[in-house]
Amino acid sequence: MRYRPLLSDSARPSTFTVDAMDENGAVQPTSIAGEHPLTLYVDKQEILTLMTLGAAPEALAIGFLRNQRLVSSIEEIVAVQVDWDVNAVAVTTRSGLVDLDKKTEKRTATTGCGQGTVFGDLMEDIESIRLDEAMRFDEATLFGLLNAMRLHESIYKQAGAVHGCALAKGSEVLTFVEDVGRHNAMDKVIGRAVLTRQDLTNLVALLSGRISFEMVLKCIRAGIPILAAVSAPTSMALELAQELNLTTVGFVRDQRLNIYTGPERVSGVGT
Amino acid sequence: MRYRPLLSDSARPSTFTVDAMDENGAVQPTSIAGEHPLTLYVDKQEILTLMTLGAAPEALAIGFLRNQRLVSSIEEIVAVQVDWDVNAVAVTTRSGLVDLDKKTEKRTATTGCGQGTVFGDLMEDIESIRLDEAMRFDEATLFGLLNAMRLHESIYKQAGAVHGCALAKGSEVLTFVEDVGRHNAMDKVIGRAVLTRQDLTNLVALLSGRISFEMVLKCIRAGIPILAAVSAPTSMALELAQELNLTTVGFVRDQRLNIYTGPERVSGVGT
Repeated sequence: MRYRPLLSDSARPSTFTVDAMDENGAVQPTSIAGEHPLTLYVDKQEILTLMTLGAAPEALAIGFLRNQRLVSSIEEIVAVQVDWDVNAVAVTTRSGLVDLDKKTEKRTATTGCGQGTVFGDLMEDIESIRLDEAMRFDEATLFGLLNAMRLHESIYKQAGAVHGCALAKGSEVLTFVEDVGRHNAMDKVIGRAVLTRQDLTNLVALLSGRISFEMVLKCIRAGIPILAAVSAPTSMALELAQELNLTTVGFVRDQRLNIYTGPERVSGVGT
Repeated sequence: MRYRPLLSDSARPSTFTVDAMDENGAVQPTSIAGEHPLTLYVDKQEILTLMTLGAAPEALAIGFLRNQRLVSSIEEIVAVQVDWDVNAVAVTTRSGLVDLDKKTEKRTATTGCGQGTVFGDLMEDIESIRLDEAMRFDEATLFGLLNAMRLHESIYKQAGAVHGCALAKGSEVLTFVEDVGRHNAMDKVIGRAVLTRQDLTNLVALLSGRISFEMVLKCIRAGIPILAAVSAPTSMALELAQELNLTTVGFVRDQRLNIYTGPERVSGVGT
């Protein structure tokens, strides 16, 4: 049996019901999305506090550490233990994280929803990354996947205020999560893929929202070659995608799309 | 003449045109929103790097410092100088910021779009704040203002990927900005209000998106008693709003709305 770290299985409810007054003055029970602080400790050292929906916090912690390149493989992690009584997730590593102080010293507050914090030199490590050049993905499959993701969006339909993120292989959605922070959503799907030892280099990442700089950064750091989204990209997102040749596809809706970078990976365009 | 700090007037273009391939394989010039790193220095000390659209960076710096409660009045600021050659904004203060090291030591990565970083103990200073209890705002005016804001949304219509934020007094929109980060947008409108010595305690803040925890925090810290938005709130946003009695109104669209907290400040409901 393959190695798997010791994991808690602690989710908090994704939605709550509150009383809200409507436009007619009537008080109605109304669903809202949950949001909880979760402080991440690695080997008892406090790293940062994330605000999250509360589902799949273990995958969030693993994906966060992976996407910040603080850990590179699941074997480095001994345990991930969430304790909502103290709003904390404690990660125990096998032999400590190399350069943790150095890597967490410099932080950048970023524009996208979610963690909004990128540790270390943004471009550090990234220039050595080569995304899979040979991967191809069919335009029609992309339309189908984004539609499938929209059908999945249960918390959004019930309460709003969340972003969805999915990973797909071929025409199959492997994992889909929602979170109040889009980065948490991306970290969670990648955390799950890391836990199940999924090869990330032939997957497509799907977003319910826009393509921000950090979403591009997370894809590249994870080795995912294609990022497709319902909304628009920003200029820094496209600059980074261009430089590392990530394929970015925006405004994927109603059988329309815009391919901004890496168009050679999208097959069947206009057919 | 009233005191005004020395300000640069350095904006970068809000949109860029890139070539994108559409669903038929045709390459079309396409607008995207600008996104630029801007590192904030106070008295030569680096505070953090914001990712911003590029418009009104001086107001962004002032509003950020005000909303983080690092400065309390415009008199404390001698100069705000933006230099896009080095992507930096340098703020010079009259006599230094008290407890700057202590306040910036602890950071929380938050879920909303934008800066995503809150310095210091989240609740520090906040418990002494009393929002204006007597303020009233008419439901019909709220509908009108949110409609007016939607008509304003020029960058969003052109390129997507941005959030809008406005401050209104009575039925008049005083200031409206868009940014790739919703927090930058909120900081900018508050920065402008601080620069023009607007009394914030009788204003309404309007958002094109959702009501996240930090948007509530920024309103409370600024003394703004009403926050109205096109989309949904999160649970932590409402808990904080309830505790400090900020009025929150969500899903304001098509003559409908939900009042989550502080309903007594909204007059004319259902009339």
